[in-house]
Amino acid sequence: MADEVNDLFDSSDSVRSGKPLEYAQTIVFPGPIKLTTGGILPEIRVAYETYGELSPHKDNAVLIFHALSGDSHVAAHNENDDPGWWDVLVGPGKYVDTNRYFVICANVLGGCRGTTGPDSVNPETGKEYGMNFPPINVADIVDVQRMLVESLGIERLLAIIGGSLGGLMALDWGVRYPDSVSGIVAIATGARMTMQALAFDVVARNAIMSDPHFYGGEYYDKEEGPSTGLAIARMLGHITYLSQESMNRKFNADRNVGRKIDTSFETKFSVGSYLAYQGGKFVERFDANSYLALTLALDAFDLGPSREALIAAMRRSMCRWLFVSFTSDWLFPSFQARELVDAAIAADKRVSYCGIKSDCGHDAFLLESESNVYGGLTDSFLHHLSLDWQNNDPERRDQLNADYGKPTPPQKERVDFDTILSLIPPKTRILDLGCGKGELLLRLKERGHDRVMGVEIEERRVLQCVENGLDVIMADLNEGLKSFSDHQFDFVVLSMTLQRIANVEIVLKEMLRVGARVIVSFPNLGYRKYRSRLDDGRAPVTDPRSDKNWYNTKDVRYMTIADFEEFCREKGCKIFRKVALNSETGKVVADRENEDADVVVVVLGS
Amino acid sequence: MADEVNDLFDSSDSVRSGKPLEYAQTIVFPGPIKLTTGGILPEIRVAYETYGELSPHKDNAVLIFHALSGDSHVAAHNENDDPGWWDVLVGPGKYVDTNRYFVICANVLGGCRGTTGPDSVNPETGKEYGMNFPPINVADIVDVQRMLVESLGIERLLAIIGGSLGGLMALDWGVRYPDSVSGIVAIATGARMTMQALAFDVVARNAIMSDPHFYGGEYYDKEEGPSTGLAIARMLGHITYLSQESMNRKFNADRNVGRKIDTSFETKFSVGSYLAYQGGKFVERFDANSYLALTLALDAFDLGPSREALIAAMRRSMCRWLFVSFTSDWLFPSFQARELVDAAIAADKRVSYCGIKSDCGHDAFLLESESNVYGGLTDSFLHHLSLDWQNNDPERRDQLNADYGKPTPPQKERVDFDTILSLIPPKTRILDLGCGKGELLLRLKERGHDRVMGVEIEERRVLQCVENGLDVIMADLNEGLKSFSDHQFDFVVLSMTLQRIANVEIVLKEMLRVGARVIVSFPNLGYRKYRSRLDDGRAPVTDPRSDKNWYNTKDVRYMTIADFEEFCREKGCKIFRKVALNSETGKVVADRENEDADVVVVVLGS
Repeated sequence: MADEVNDLFDSSDSVRSGKPLEYAQTIVFPGPIKLTTGGILPEIRVAYETYGELSPHKDNAVLIFHALSGDSHVAAHNENDDPGWWDVLVGPGKYVDTNRYFVICANVLGGCRGTTGPDSVNPETGKEYGMNFPPINVADIVDVQRMLVESLGIERLLAIIGGSLGGLMALDWGVRYPDSVSGIVAIATGARMTMQALAFDVVARNAIMSDPHFYGGEYYDKEEGPSTGLAIARMLGHITYLSQESMNRKFNADRNVGRKIDTSFETKFSVGSYLAYQGGKFVERFDANSYLALTLALDAFDLGPSREALIAAMRRSMCRWLFVSFTSDWLFPSFQARELVDAAIAADKRVSYCGIKSDCGHDAFLLESESNVYGGLTDSFLHHLSLDWQNNDPERRDQLNADYGKPTPPQKERVDFDTILSLIPPKTRILDLGCGKGELLLRLKERGHDRVMGVEIEERRVLQCVENGLDVIMADLNEGLKSFSDHQFDFVVLSMTLQRIANVEIVLKEMLRVGARVIVSFPNLGYRKYRSRLDDGRAPVTDPRSDKNWYNTKDVRYMTIADFEEFCREKGCKIFRKVALNSETGKVVADRENEDADVVVVVLGS
Repeated sequence: MADEVNDLFDSSDSVRSGKPLEYAQTIVFPGPIKLTTGGILPEIRVAYETYGELSPHKDNAVLIFHALSGDSHVAAHNENDDPGWWDVLVGPGKYVDTNRYFVICANVLGGCRGTTGPDSVNPETGKEYGMNFPPINVADIVDVQRMLVESLGIERLLAIIGGSLGGLMALDWGVRYPDSVSGIVAIATGARMTMQALAFDVVARNAIMSDPHFYGGEYYDKEEGPSTGLAIARMLGHITYLSQESMNRKFNADRNVGRKIDTSFETKFSVGSYLAYQGGKFVERFDANSYLALTLALDAFDLGPSREALIAAMRRSMCRWLFVSFTSDWLFPSFQARELVDAAIAADKRVSYCGIKSDCGHDAFLLESESNVYGGLTDSFLHHLSLDWQNNDPERRDQLNADYGKPTPPQKERVDFDTILSLIPPKTRILDLGCGKGELLLRLKERGHDRVMGVEIEERRVLQCVENGLDVIMADLNEGLKSFSDHQFDFVVLSMTLQRIANVEIVLKEMLRVGARVIVSFPNLGYRKYRSRLDDGRAPVTDPRSDKNWYNTKDVRYMTIADFEEFCREKGCKIFRKVALNSETGKVVADRENEDADVVVVVLGS
């Protein structure tokens, strides 16, 4: 029976028990401390844990925010220690390598795991705060963590990492204390709760507050608290953490087989006994008043209620951003990450984004099975933040690169790259669409362009770009470039990608809007070898990958240089330069380009 | 204030009040009646309403099943009557035209709107059943409605329509009483609840049963019932009826502005006051024990827990099926409809499916804004059911067509159609991929093929096919033909569509699996005009629509007859026939086909 229960009920989220945190340290900030809501606390106690060593330069500190029900125990401190809630990510040799970084994680204000919250004893009354605990905002939670970081002698964090509700806190820090953090990793989060997530929180709070044992929040001296309401709230939460797919995987095999567990809740179906179990476990370790205080703070949070407000908020930030979302997450759907990414782009910040393909729902950000991408992105992002900080210390940079241990692989050069590079003046700002793993962008960076950015649709390419220290946005070009502002870049490049694009008109129009100049390279169907192939009765394939055929090439557009020139004339866009190339000779084609060139590079403007 | 409340709170789902149903009739079936669960009821009372007139042949009866909280009042009976819950669909001149059809809608067994349920008085005890109401299955609900239909003198229904949970009942009828219904329209439903939807039901029941005023279900003589738990259950339900998009549309403008309403629930956010309002309204008109009894019946329902079981169930049915889903519905996601469609196809039933693009969530099936598609599909489906029933009575068919009022528009003929028709022997079974509005299928039907079916990706084309009385499945060919069994059809046709398909290898392989023979027609890039265009330095476009260019054609594949022949050799598939055509002359090309034909028709087999 026990095994069966474990089999069904094991969850990344249920490892936390209610027992004291052995490695937690405590710091008390004396008051009175005024909150942003107007409330006042006579003192604030903070429980936190640290991992690794702070470097002599204090340039390796990483702060991690936990989500609603987490605590300071982000990772195990040693083999014998209890598991941490993000052991997958944090530890020696892991993605957030505690051999390299000094990691800090603290229980949030309003919580119930060591930091001052509604269940803490008010020193002025000698009784728990209960409903007298003042309302708090996310800003108050962040301010308290900032006090902690400063008390540790850290002026500037290398990075802040926040997943889920912890991401909201990370965002708040980024825009309110811009000069105290170099980079922010925001995973499975958004600028605010979706209306749907907010609605679930409302129902959860109604369940708690209408529990007859809630006693208006003054239940600490009662025999029984609102454990039924809190358990129901938690059941709801658990549904939102999973996806349709992951729920099916977990519960479908024995859908109608409930488990016998000690509960007053329904256990008719396997998923029912799981929810009853999770609800029951939760009330052992969590305080209902904390649930109310924290969800109200989080539900009220809004980084910016309109696109304009969001851009204004992001404009205040000074850090690099890494946003990560998961395709099956419906608590913080990918469109929320995209909204933040778009605002960061519009505010002209350095930003990367990856929408990871996963069927694990919101939980994905805690799972080992999904960690190679979100962990790999975080690892590379932190490494390049470190490098940037050490810009003027080559010795330290070499050491950091040695610690990182991932050398940049040699790049395969394409025939059009030299030409494109020769057409781009120094110091200009460049956006590369369909950037692959970033070969062209890396060469531009080496040449000293400090504002280069890529757009790419393939997940593994996005990961490679971030490994290369590049800013890259995962997006489908066919949906246009709405993330980008008018004339945001000096050059927008589309190299050997036009033939893959269905919505040619939209993409070219958008490129001309976003770039002062546009550079396009593409294969020329007019090339003599292609012509003669059709003369022989066979369809030419312009895909440079020789193993591809008419039926399996990813190319969907075929055009000659003459076709493209006519297209530009018709659409009223000017061709400023045109360099025709022959990839076999590697030379520029001066005459009869529509016959003798297999690749052409064109500079356009409107 | 009242206006403001209405503005926010008006909902298709909240029109029902608790007041008596003026037009409801009642019939009592004397007992004892044994249920499928083993329970026994001393009698069953059924409240029902009817609309329109039963025809002398009794061939126009349409039964509609309501969902969880509905009742017999599916539509208003006249201008002064209360609104019905599906007025959008049902009424004189509407999609389910009560001038043509005799519509029946009854409150379900276990409900609380006139039909026997937990709040009914048990004649044997003189007290409400309460928790002594026996458990029921969906089968019991259906059996009672069948007794009602028989009591009205109807042996065979023209159609059953069920949306949402009503769809589960429609499905159950279809497989258990196959000879008593000609067609079933199942909208926004599934073979069972998803695990996620089941989980929400569990939480809802926990909220009701843990309400201290539940008294184990014996609350009828108490001052207060479990109205808090029931309201919380309803709040949850309302979230699942909406989509992210529709919630945002409804509540985002004044997200933080709660409405002042008379409630003990939280009203801090606009969505919170909406949920409080809906929860409060619901408890005025619905019984908590009914909520438990019905959701337990529905959660236990499973038409078939595996693909094999589902196919076996569908095999028992004898009706035509129309399945409709909505893209943003996450209570009954489209994959559930597809699962049913696939089972119906595998069971070789006549079936159509449309996945309607909508951002309104599950509620879409009740909304006027989405009704032109789901209503139009239902209208056409019912009409063709009627026609089929009158197969031997041309006079009655003419009358039905006159009533329907939508003449089949004259079809534009394509050059390859005659050839394809000539290659298909009589009486064979044909699947047409990318069938458009069904021109070829209609000609095949006219020729006497009684098993023809189409697959089409465009919504308006699917609607046109159903208007034409054809069986059509909305699907993307690039995802393969996994709905279809090996050699399910004699011929699988892909006419002038190959050039639009990215996954050529998969689609052709799948066609050869599903059809004994395969017929493909496509434009030949080798055609002399195309060659000479490339000789002139321009890319040929083989799209027959003359206004399309290299950059905006939907074509993504270009191949010559020779290319295709080589492809077939390499993939080991045999070409049995090849007819090359010239669309300008309209003639067959005998020699030099790779130069002189612009279209080719090929018959393949493996």
